Amino acid sequence: MNHHQPPIIPHIYRSFFDIMTKNEAAELLRYGKARQGCISLAQGEGSLPTPDFVCDAMSEALKSGKTFYGAALGLPELRQEIAIYMARIYGHNIPTNRISITTSGTNAVHFALLSILEAGDDVVAVTPIWKNLIGIAQLAGGTITEVPMTLNEGKWHLDLDKLFDACGSKTKAIMIVSPNNPTGWVMPAEDIKTILDYARGKGLWVIADEVYGRTTYNMSRAPSFLDYAEDYDQLYVINSFSKTWAMTGWRLGWLIGPRDCEGKINDLILYENMGPPPFIQIGAISALRHGEDFLAEQKNLWKDNLATLAHKWKNMERIDMAIPDSAFYAFFRVKGENNSYAFARRLIDEAGVSLAPGGAFGNGLNDYLRLCFAASPAVLDEALARLQPFLE
Amino acid sequence: MNHHQPPIIPHIYRSFFDIMTKNEAAELLRYGKARQGCISLAQGEGSLPTPDFVCDAMSEALKSGKTFYGAALGLPELRQEIAIYMARIYGHNIPTNRISITTSGTNAVHFALLSILEAGDDVVAVTPIWKNLIGIAQLAGGTITEVPMTLNEGKWHLDLDKLFDACGSKTKAIMIVSPNNPTGWVMPAEDIKTILDYARGKGLWVIADEVYGRTTYNMSRAPSFLDYAEDYDQLYVINSFSKTWAMTGWRLGWLIGPRDCEGKINDLILYENMGPPPFIQIGAISALRHGEDFLAEQKNLWKDNLATLAHKWKNMERIDMAIPDSAFYAFFRVKGENNSYAFARRLIDEAGVSLAPGGAFGNGLNDYLRLCFAASPAVLDEALARLQPFLE
Repeated sequence: MNHHQPPIIPHIYRSFFDIMTKNEAAELLRYGKARQGCISLAQGEGSLPTPDFVCDAMSEALKSGKTFYGAALGLPELRQEIAIYMARIYGHNIPTNRISITTSGTNAVHFALLSILEAGDDVVAVTPIWKNLIGIAQLAGGTITEVPMTLNEGKWHLDLDKLFDACGSKTKAIMIVSPNNPTGWVMPAEDIKTILDYARGKGLWVIADEVYGRTTYNMSRAPSFLDYAEDYDQLYVINSFSKTWAMTGWRLGWLIGPRDCEGKINDLILYENMGPPPFIQIGAISALRHGEDFLAEQKNLWKDNLATLAHKWKNMERIDMAIPDSAFYAFFRVKGENNSYAFARRLIDEAGVSLAPGGAFGNGLNDYLRLCFAASPAVLDEALARLQPFLE
Repeated sequence: MNHHQPPIIPHIYRSFFDIMTKNEAAELLRYGKARQGCISLAQGEGSLPTPDFVCDAMSEALKSGKTFYGAALGLPELRQEIAIYMARIYGHNIPTNRISITTSGTNAVHFALLSILEAGDDVVAVTPIWKNLIGIAQLAGGTITEVPMTLNEGKWHLDLDKLFDACGSKTKAIMIVSPNNPTGWVMPAEDIKTILDYARGKGLWVIADEVYGRTTYNMSRAPSFLDYAEDYDQLYVINSFSKTWAMTGWRLGWLIGPRDCEGKINDLILYENMGPPPFIQIGAISALRHGEDFLAEQKNLWKDNLATLAHKWKNMERIDMAIPDSAFYAFFRVKGENNSYAFARRLIDEAGVSLAPGGAFGNGLNDYLRLCFAASPAVLDEALARLQPFLE
């Protein structure tokens, strides 16, 4: 057969791919990583590898032959350990049948939305929000209505009236990431209560991504939708091992849903991936049991890094940002820049620093950039020095 | 709040759950596993844990700090190693941009179907087939038309005319599992060629699940659709580390698609799970490089077990089965039994042996059971002794 002939067969993929906007941020991330000597502060992860007490627990599990199939919804021991953790840290008794183990926080959002959205259902999402969460809703057949927060006088604000006005006849769910990636904003408890009441009255679901709930700087954990919800509320709460215990590469998270969710999530997991590896979950049990000191150590590092950054940028007049209350991002506006993708690419090429473009976090954010400051202090110093001439 | 009040909020999940048939086989599996002293031969996995040369490679990766985010489509090193493996074992040069790493063979089927099916598209599936593959098509919005093989004189037969007659205006893909779970049947090379030609002419996709391609008893590997396909053919070939190298718990597989599939699969992975853990993939590289002796050892064990079973069942007049050419299942009809779910439950309760009900593998198979003979010889002996009075 002549391989130089053009192909005669058209490839008919799903039309979904035509409506998906290009994930330019993911492409820029790859571009930055491929560039020799470039410092990447574009991705949301810390500089520390997973601590030994987690890795060792997994290696032990491997050695003892825990390499066989596990349950789709996760190891019963891990579901139980999460219940214990939720009681200890959050003060809530969540029965294990409301807890599903997922192959990441992303995967938990995916299953949550996939379990409720019909084609054409709308999700009202508070922005800034990570672009992938919008993609997840679209992949599940949904549409997205963005409700942007605003940055005023160094604080992010969410207008609840605007949020509720955005909920219409097609709305199926309200999606909120608090503590927020990328802004570090933490939703106040009274807003959580108000939103939950509103959703209850309207029969809407709430999808609460709380993966940054423990990476908080002025409290031991952020307010949670679980603080005010009953077990029959149409609420999914997403969590992850990634940020809290430096386990981004482990691809492990969990999903807490209403009391009747277990069978639904089980069905979805059976037909998608059959759940995460059991030995990985045994490592995660160790993270939950022994992870508080390590989390404190990480938070100290990030807090110091944030102080360094805030100090260096204090008099930078082109930069506008809120000091984050959680997570490890500086999400900042650069006055005079209005194409965050082009600007981020220029910073990779000319400064040798890779940041995430603000445009990836929703409409109207194309003059923003996101910098992950969870680097080692030396690397952060070098990156800030390289960026200085471009931000002044 | 009074917790004894009935909930006032209806839970509106996706209508998909209403059309999904219950996965009774998965429920039976759990039931059998929970029963004290029950021997489970219901699941498709061997008795050997993952070999040390795979586990050690992963533990080394952990120790060297490979715990950070990896690429969505998989580690470039693993994609490359699969290309080398495909060249060595199959004799084909598959560029890495056609290879995606997935979180299991199941997950690879999921991404393959999700990338091509629109709501209402039909998939023509050769049965017997594992129920979950049908669920995957339904989850992606598709319907299934079953084309049953027939068991005659100790051999399974597929009637290609029946297969092609089943392809209508709504058909988007033909799905074939060869070597077949549960029958162990291997599609002959000439049938592969004929199907590929037919699909090409009609513009149909072929989804070829070849995860049992190496667990063959009379050849070093089964014929593959890749043997006759060009890189522009609408073909997805699914593979997995699970069976070949005793890595069921690792949740790792791979998907080979047409030359333009990379961006599509990347999009899906970004919005579902962001790919499998990097350190797991480093273990998998070791499996591909050093796994042939271990595979041979497993195959010897399974071959001996199959000989034992065939010998013991030789004169069992109620049993009708084909001796498998691949995989590690006895898929057998029991004359006089016509409710495989009830019969399998009775065997758990009364014989203390858990088998998979034939009804889970397609219509018209409710007088069949599937027994996984990849157990240790002692366990298999005990299970066969327990089953004897119920099968005589």
